[in-house]
Amino acid sequence: MHPFTYQNPTRVVFGRGVIGRVGNEAALLGSRILLVHGSRFLKERGWLEKILTPLRAAGLEVVEYGGVKPNPLLSHVREGIRMARKEEIAAIVAAGGGSVMDSAKAIAAGALVEHDVWQFFKGKKGIRAALPLICIPTLAGSGSEMNCGMVLTNEKTSQKFGIGNKALFPRVSLLDPEITCSVPPNHSAYGAVDAIVHLLEHYFTTTDQETPVQRRLAEGLIITVMESCEIILQNPHDYDARANIMWAAALALNGVASAGLGWVGFPMHMIEHSLSALYDIPHGAGLAAILPAWLRFQAETDPHKLAAFGKRIFNIQAENPETDARHTITAMKHWLEGLSCPTSLSELGIAETDIPAIAENALGLAKLWRLREYTQKVIEKILRSCE
Amino acid sequence: MHPFTYQNPTRVVFGRGVIGRVGNEAALLGSRILLVHGSRFLKERGWLEKILTPLRAAGLEVVEYGGVKPNPLLSHVREGIRMARKEEIAAIVAAGGGSVMDSAKAIAAGALVEHDVWQFFKGKKGIRAALPLICIPTLAGSGSEMNCGMVLTNEKTSQKFGIGNKALFPRVSLLDPEITCSVPPNHSAYGAVDAIVHLLEHYFTTTDQETPVQRRLAEGLIITVMESCEIILQNPHDYDARANIMWAAALALNGVASAGLGWVGFPMHMIEHSLSALYDIPHGAGLAAILPAWLRFQAETDPHKLAAFGKRIFNIQAENPETDARHTITAMKHWLEGLSCPTSLSELGIAETDIPAIAENALGLAKLWRLREYTQKVIEKILRSCE
Repeated sequence: MHPFTYQNPTRVVFGRGVIGRVGNEAALLGSRILLVHGSRFLKERGWLEKILTPLRAAGLEVVEYGGVKPNPLLSHVREGIRMARKEEIAAIVAAGGGSVMDSAKAIAAGALVEHDVWQFFKGKKGIRAALPLICIPTLAGSGSEMNCGMVLTNEKTSQKFGIGNKALFPRVSLLDPEITCSVPPNHSAYGAVDAIVHLLEHYFTTTDQETPVQRRLAEGLIITVMESCEIILQNPHDYDARANIMWAAALALNGVASAGLGWVGFPMHMIEHSLSALYDIPHGAGLAAILPAWLRFQAETDPHKLAAFGKRIFNIQAENPETDARHTITAMKHWLEGLSCPTSLSELGIAETDIPAIAENALGLAKLWRLREYTQKVIEKILRSCE
Repeated sequence: MHPFTYQNPTRVVFGRGVIGRVGNEAALLGSRILLVHGSRFLKERGWLEKILTPLRAAGLEVVEYGGVKPNPLLSHVREGIRMARKEEIAAIVAAGGGSVMDSAKAIAAGALVEHDVWQFFKGKKGIRAALPLICIPTLAGSGSEMNCGMVLTNEKTSQKFGIGNKALFPRVSLLDPEITCSVPPNHSAYGAVDAIVHLLEHYFTTTDQETPVQRRLAEGLIITVMESCEIILQNPHDYDARANIMWAAALALNGVASAGLGWVGFPMHMIEHSLSALYDIPHGAGLAAILPAWLRFQAETDPHKLAAFGKRIFNIQAENPETDARHTITAMKHWLEGLSCPTSLSELGIAETDIPAIAENALGLAKLWRLREYTQKVIEKILRSCE
């Protein structure tokens, strides 16, 4: 077990109807609030009013900033920063999925500095402070509501980069599983895949031989996310399944699951970020397409670990490590197919001839994220195996 | 899944040698430090110097306050409060087991009020603030290093009471598994039993039908604590086993494992506190003696849950719930015996004729802890079954 430092200051308020508390919570942070959201989902489902009403009832000035897209864009964040400054915003409320929460984090950090916000993502400038943030996640998956990471796409350079800084932890996150009940099946599944991949990236890239406490934690969360997702696709309004997956997704990337594992990498996220940056596909869909191929790559270097994982998650009966690893990959692929997730590049409409360009794009992040073994050749090989 | 609020501000610094950082950490909190400890263990093993040296190197004035006993005493805490005031202490460093950390918490809260510290424990006064605290646990078990609870014995009234308040979260806890390598086998086992019972109290007293994410989290932690404890008894210096059990014990009672379970009770702790208060036995030894009997009591009302637990933890093969529950209790008893823990009152030297007095003592806590179904009769029945 590796040395670690763990601290997570975010206060989570969890349960049916907790969004009604947003007024009182925001009032503790300031009187001028920027409400960042993605517009359509919140408005159509009536949630926007359920957030605005308590904010106004608490006597707060609310400036709305909608229109965040999946794979959130740098240009939109820059505009949000200008607005936050002009309106002398004291605190931000983010209501949406990972894209909305990450955009809000970028605005929160960018509003306090003179330089351009993309400098943070390139690693040229460090984050020292951010406006206080309240998150209201509308989808279980990204875990952004309980961590200090953010991901943003620079549409001019086609770079989707992610960074973290402790100033970005939300002050409070209001987790209301009921909001997620109206998320459509495909996006519910993409969220589940995102959460599972966060755990798998830890699980397989840790440099630790064996940390049973963390291994079992990850396995318990993975099984819960899978099981809850299956229930949700049968019955989207199953509150308990929505609640279980929501808490599991938060725990998957809030630092608890990675403590003691030493350095962990995010190679699948690295490759997927290139797909999202170049083709603007949903993040979870891109991850699903990469996952079986990446597991295949993983099996080449360490079939034992994958076989052991398959035994614990899919109850694969032991034959030999190579066969068990193969069965594990097949089981994972079948599970993804059962959720109607894409499991190949062609299902995403991406041609094989594009692979070198995707790999080249991913290399930028490989350097930033210290994934040195992921050369152009290796990334191309994994992408060619996405079939 | 029940609604919940979760926040844990404690920063955990984990790994070999982290106690060397105590000087820098304490210097952030103030210049006059009260070092609370139990004296013998720290001194004999040479750890006291390894704590004093960095504290002094950081230019801090250190006032030592040793002599904390297992089942820490109100009189000793009161003396510590007097000392903290007289010496104008700015922050406390607690180096020891649960008793030391809990004593330090009581001193930290008591030093800031005019009234007697026991008023907090009786629920007559609320805690509003406490001196900042750094914990250096020397034993995995209590979880006090990452929670806001504390337990104290009033030796005049023979009451061992426990309370919690968010002001009591340690600012920082330095978890160095190596320190725990010199804990003798019996106390290592008692710590493991304490951690497991924390999880079992959640597991069986939750009012929730089923919260898979939390159930799997608890099961993973329980198995890890059991497995690590077995390794430790074979090889006390196995760093990885010490590290795994240390982190598992912290997670067992830091709020993560109980989130979403609704109200959870601590009936085994309630009964054990009476044993400790009346006979001054080690807390974990008392819990071990009660555990099989309490599981028997549990099986009467819900054999299904105990049977399912037995299947997952001890791999009990399904016959019928009643039989499986019985096998689970036997398996748990055998496991405790394998650690040389007492599993009966007689092994603790407690006569059956004392049972009514023990039960009467426990009733005081039953009221404070809202364990209404634990009447004199019920507690006596459980105690008579401790054999």
